[in-house]
Amino acid sequence: MNSENVSICEKIVSSSYIRQGSQARRSHEQLIRMLLEQGKCPEEGWSESTIELFLNELAVMDSNNFLGNCGVGEREGRVASSLVARRHYRLIHGIGRSGDIAAVQPKAAGSSLLNKLTNSVVLDVLKVAGVRSVSSCFVVPMATGMSLTLCFLTLRHRRPGARYILWPRIDQKSCFKAMVTAGFEPVVVENRLEGDELRTDLEMVKRKIEELGAENILCVHSTTSCFAPRVPDRLEELAEICAKHDIPHIVNNAYGVQSSKCMHLIQQGARVGRIDAFVQSLDKNFMVPVGGAIIAGFNEPFIQEISRMYPGRASASPSLDVLITLLTLGASGYKKLLRERKEMYGHLVQELQRLAEAHGERLLHTPHNPISLGIYCRL
Amino acid sequence: MNSENVSICEKIVSSSYIRQGSQARRSHEQLIRMLLEQGKCPEEGWSESTIELFLNELAVMDSNNFLGNCGVGEREGRVASSLVARRHYRLIHGIGRSGDIAAVQPKAAGSSLLNKLTNSVVLDVLKVAGVRSVSSCFVVPMATGMSLTLCFLTLRHRRPGARYILWPRIDQKSCFKAMVTAGFEPVVVENRLEGDELRTDLEMVKRKIEELGAENILCVHSTTSCFAPRVPDRLEELAEICAKHDIPHIVNNAYGVQSSKCMHLIQQGARVGRIDAFVQSLDKNFMVPVGGAIIAGFNEPFIQEISRMYPGRASASPSLDVLITLLTLGASGYKKLLRERKEMYGHLVQELQRLAEAHGERLLHTPHNPISLGIYCRL
Amino acid sequence: MNSENVSICEKIVSSSYIRQGSQARRSHEQLIRMLLEQGKCPEEGWSESTIELFLNELAVMDSNNFLGNCGVGEREGRVASSLVARRHYRLIHGIGRSGDIAAVQPKAAGSSLLNKLTNSVVLDVLKVAGVRSVSSCFVVPMATGMSLTLCFLTLRHRRPGARYILWPRIDQKSCFKAMVTAGFEPVVVENRLEGDELRTDLEMVKRKIEELGAENILCVHSTTSCFAPRVPDRLEELAEICAKHDIPHIVNNAYGVQSSKCMHLIQQGARVGRIDAFVQSLDKNFMVPVGGAIIAGFNEPFIQEISRMYPGRASASPSLDVLITLLTLGASGYKKLLRERKEMYGHLVQELQRLAEAHGERLLHTPHNPISLGIYCRL
Amino acid sequence: MNSENVSICEKIVSSSYIRQGSQARRSHEQLIRMLLEQGKCPEEGWSESTIELFLNELAVMDSNNFLGNCGVGEREGRVASSLVARRHYRLIHGIGRSGDIAAVQPKAAGSSLLNKLTNSVVLDVLKVAGVRSVSSCFVVPMATGMSLTLCFLTLRHRRPGARYILWPRIDQKSCFKAMVTAGFEPVVVENRLEGDELRTDLEMVKRKIEELGAENILCVHSTTSCFAPRVPDRLEELAEICAKHDIPHIVNNAYGVQSSKCMHLIQQGARVGRIDAFVQSLDKNFMVPVGGAIIAGFNEPFIQEISRMYPGRASASPSLDVLITLLTLGASGYKKLLRERKEMYGHLVQELQRLAEAHGERLLHTPHNPISLGIYCRL
Repeated sequence: MNSENVSICEKIVSSSYIRQGSQARRSHEQLIRMLLEQGKCPEEGWSESTIELFLNELAVMDSNNFLGNCGVGEREGRVASSLVARRHYRLIHGIGRSGDIAAVQPKAAGSSLLNKLTNSVVLDVLKVAGVRSVSSCFVVPMATGMSLTLCFLTLRHRRPGARYILWPRIDQKSCFKAMVTAGFEPVVVENRLEGDELRTDLEMVKRKIEELGAENILCVHSTTSCFAPRVPDRLEELAEICAKHDIPHIVNNAYGVQSSKCMHLIQQGARVGRIDAFVQSLDKNFMVPVGGAIIAGFNEPFIQEISRMYPGRASASPSLDVLITLLTLGASGYKKLLRERKEMYGHLVQELQRLAEAHGERLLHTPHNPISLGIYCRL
Repeated sequence: MNSENVSICEKIVSSSYIRQGSQARRSHEQLIRMLLEQGKCPEEGWSESTIELFLNELAVMDSNNFLGNCGVGEREGRVASSLVARRHYRLIHGIGRSGDIAAVQPKAAGSSLLNKLTNSVVLDVLKVAGVRSVSSCFVVPMATGMSLTLCFLTLRHRRPGARYILWPRIDQKSCFKAMVTAGFEPVVVENRLEGDELRTDLEMVKRKIEELGAENILCVHSTTSCFAPRVPDRLEELAEICAKHDIPHIVNNAYGVQSSKCMHLIQQGARVGRIDAFVQSLDKNFMVPVGGAIIAGFNEPFIQEISRMYPGRASASPSLDVLITLLTLGASGYKKLLRERKEMYGHLVQELQRLAEAHGERLLHTPHNPISLGIYCRL
Repeated sequence: MNSENVSICEKIVSSSYIRQGSQARRSHEQLIRMLLEQGKCPEEGWSESTIELFLNELAVMDSNNFLGNCGVGEREGRVASSLVARRHYRLIHGIGRSGDIAAVQPKAAGSSLLNKLTNSVVLDVLKVAGVRSVSSCFVVPMATGMSLTLCFLTLRHRRPGARYILWPRIDQKSCFKAMVTAGFEPVVVENRLEGDELRTDLEMVKRKIEELGAENILCVHSTTSCFAPRVPDRLEELAEICAKHDIPHIVNNAYGVQSSKCMHLIQQGARVGRIDAFVQSLDKNFMVPVGGAIIAGFNEPFIQEISRMYPGRASASPSLDVLITLLTLGASGYKKLLRERKEMYGHLVQELQRLAEAHGERLLHTPHNPISLGIYCRL
Repeated sequence: MNSENVSICEKIVSSSYIRQGSQARRSHEQLIRMLLEQGKCPEEGWSESTIELFLNELAVMDSNNFLGNCGVGEREGRVASSLVARRHYRLIHGIGRSGDIAAVQPKAAGSSLLNKLTNSVVLDVLKVAGVRSVSSCFVVPMATGMSLTLCFLTLRHRRPGARYILWPRIDQKSCFKAMVTAGFEPVVVENRLEGDELRTDLEMVKRKIEELGAENILCVHSTTSCFAPRVPDRLEELAEICAKHDIPHIVNNAYGVQSSKCMHLIQQGARVGRIDAFVQSLDKNFMVPVGGAIIAGFNEPFIQEISRMYPGRASASPSLDVLITLLTLGASGYKKLLRERKEMYGHLVQELQRLAEAHGERLLHTPHNPISLGIYCRL
């Protein structure tokens, strides 16, 4: 309530109580102010009432909620079902413009704020999670695979002659399809077995570059999070190779934000060599519904280039989900989840080892994989 | 959002869009200001977004929603279930204080505003519906019957020696029980058959007063809305008799707000004679869930006396429902519903007549009953 | 979904997945079955999804939600605002009938189930909390004070000549008003100072009974939960006195359910003597919004007599809140809260003692009061 | 409630009321059955209570809502925020699998049903709106532009050598970007001015095909809905040309579903010639939030090919929105909106003509554009 209305309230109900109430309102406003000013995930999570207050404030700024407004264009944020309106907090305009998914929409100041703040808060969390030097990112309402496709399509404009993508093998369908859909030919680099682990064969990567010619290679497409016995790629060395041969480097970090090791690999890779973008799933890392990803990198103009490739406005739904979730958890809540996951992983190792032994089987020794475990089963 | 936060927003998103958005916010604030200033039902209904914005504003003023607050008393508005909190818009403190159901609560400025505004808006609607000179009313989270009981209990303190309630017969159980529960002896005055209609027998009322002695009569308990062939009581004449003998007069107007005739009877009764209070159901007149009533009258101190009889705080749920409903409909929406009801009643008369004739039966001629109809069936 | 629809689903989506899904549905149904069969608070709390599924099932059974239904009466559960409908889960008909607040409504099988189950679950929780031999109770949508009033009004019919209520003094306005509103004369029995504690003066109670004559006394109105230095009344002795003189005994147990001591007193009182009813607040004991109470006792016919005194249907809102809350917490969750409160009370004693000493003051020694503490401040 | 639970209910509440209530439940089930069996938009819209009942039924079939389930994988539909869970009706798993956005998910029978039914209902509505012979479609959680990109990327695999897209000029950024992002070179075909209208220059299209060689052209990319003075492309003739030269034909029907003329053009084009896919926006045609599109066509294998190009699962949010909306409106409600739009367009023509004349300007005569109007302004 604005100060004018607060004054009228004081005539209806004892002014001392009203003043107390409006000071309480200021404490919510104060949290919102910090978010707006710093663009960071608040250290402590917000209450649901602060979050809903904030979302309502954003919604009233969108033109579809202007009282007495009557839009006659083809895209005015009209909604037929009140169930639908409510579940989106009446934020109907989506994010971005036809020119750029990260751009501001004239008809939707609130949705635009939502979009900017989400990207900013997510950037902060990526730093908190270990990639300290990440400089830019945006949330995109597409799965990890389709987001990788968008990165590859963007690179095409920089390297119009390139046809191949160098890809240390990882047995996940959507990773492979991401390249094929973009129209490129994946060049599979088989991994090497080192002890129980399947690790990047750097020699083979180099050999392929020589074979195919650096200029014909769109990028190296590496992976962090994966299932044992495969372990995260040797990102540092790959990044150095990419830097040396001037080949772009896109990292599939699908469910790696939750692992300090995966994030550390990316941080190191970017420090010593070249990483153009790294892509992670929203649902796998932030406990939100399926359907969003974060495209992040160290070079702001390139990340912007990607965001400008998305033709049209996009759904704000994944952005809304991740913003609500991060405001609810706070940085401290998110870090607590990360700690717990690590501890549970240790517990899982121990118990799986016991289980395997009890059945005369063996837990594979894959210390470089901080997420997944495998058991060797004799047939 | 306060102006400080709006300024920060202007740094994130183009300031012209933000300014437009915050002007839009002002138009919601403007509606709220008019409500606060005038305490009347707005002519045009509000959008759901204005209503929810307003309720959220009220809620943040209640101490259970103060951030960082930690109450240790027995009644701090703590809520265990978030489903419950949400469905009450986090307004948990109820209405009133132990001293008075209409009083302001120090811990709950927002709930107190809700209570005051609801009573004020409802008063306005009673005027709109035809009782122009009503001067005071309050919503009570009890059924019509129990609310009548409260009126009778209040009168007891004014007339400690009185034992009887004069009651023109009406065949509804809760009306009868309202008197018995209050500890009084109902003196049933049978109605007279005039044509097809059962109407108040005024002579019998006068005779009973003489018989019992006015000082032994707590009040006359009359009825407006009723089922045919009974018709509304002769309120004017009853009010005159009450005035003459200095006997209080309580009117059961259960589902009479929707009928201009019933409301007119009350208005006239109060003008020419004596009506101490009239009681109406919330659900039967305002399309809200069962469980609330309005106690209204023409003498503010007496209505306050009743509100001070309710021992303890009370549920805000019926007040919240009727406020949301009236803000949604607006005065114009409510009047439209009244008009439609009248038109449909006319249609019902016509069709029932046709139906009755088709079966060789007769629709009773009960022109004084504006709500209900009866068919005479030969056995 | 019924089995017919499940079969159709199997043609759309792989039948093995659908079968798994419909088995999952059965596990929700199983929880509901246990609730329906046993009428007890489930040991483990339910998930929000089970609760909402259950409430939706109840709602579709109420006639206002019958598809194609068109009610023309004055009370059909029509709702004007969808905000209001939603917040009540479309359960609009309230509870009870004009004859009895605990009765079944023909138009509302779902609301009737809600009412019956709530009363049954609450009864179970009163037993769990210590009053093992309680035999009957019902939730009433009125504050504790007004509920006590209803008890007194019921007793009037059993003791038409009685004018007085014997009341060991307790300085809470609504307790006093509960008696005055019911039309009785409170006879205040001052407490005795024993050490730091203010305790029931049993001699004075006996003397007053002799003075006034047992037949002129409506009841003894005692209190458990109270503020130090007053301590809970000597319920056992009062119950024995009441039994001996054949005087009804109503206990104000406002915020006593949370205290095993208060509940034990009631259990003991009923065992050795006479307690006709004990009344407790919903919000103070079950973390729900203000506005409901439980009237409970050991003699089912008397409790039914009270429930039959409430004239008219009543709001289902407090019943809905307490049912949702108890299903959410489960018996184990509720017991956990009771344990925590007890532990925190111990902590509070310790810290207040330290604080008092630090300021040269003294924490009053009131071991019979399990809820509240006082500090003696010299002026 | 299953029949077992209904039986238990009959012991708690009068069995005749329960039976009535459970028959009422059957009427909801009946609506759901028809939807499942026919996969069509119901003629009459559903009530919110049927819709929510249905969505809850779907949700309990998803493994994240299995009681007692404990998933340890990377994608188990865990949700951190209850605000987020609620707004998605606890349908968390998204739609599709890594292999195919239209595929069934083993972990989510409910979400899979949602996906299948939405696509089926949307297909029905496209027929209702005029493209009677459409045979397959799917909802994709991407904007129209990005969906067109996906179509182009799919065609690349069929025509690996093709570099050009023939594109009758339309001044909308995202249409142009859709081609560029996919990595193709748009060949702009300027429109011809015929009267006031800008219409497809068929001769120029033919000439370009000859110039570039049919085999080098990925497809013709035509447009229906557009701003005056441009009018919808000559789809029939373009479709004939495409058929003759064996060139694929993709139609941008962004906001054309609402116009019977645009839909008729597509229907005719497919009848006489070749249309491979037509793409429409969800928000522009169905009053839902921004962010989804429908990709539809006449050849099921090709549409499936496109759906298999999307790498990874996708957000269910746009599907959920459009399903809720169409179930709310019903086919009759949707057709009513279409009629109203047409009538309002007629009104707009009239009034704009009057306005233009009043200012000495001229409303352009663009009878082939059923959606948009232009005024000629002299400078």
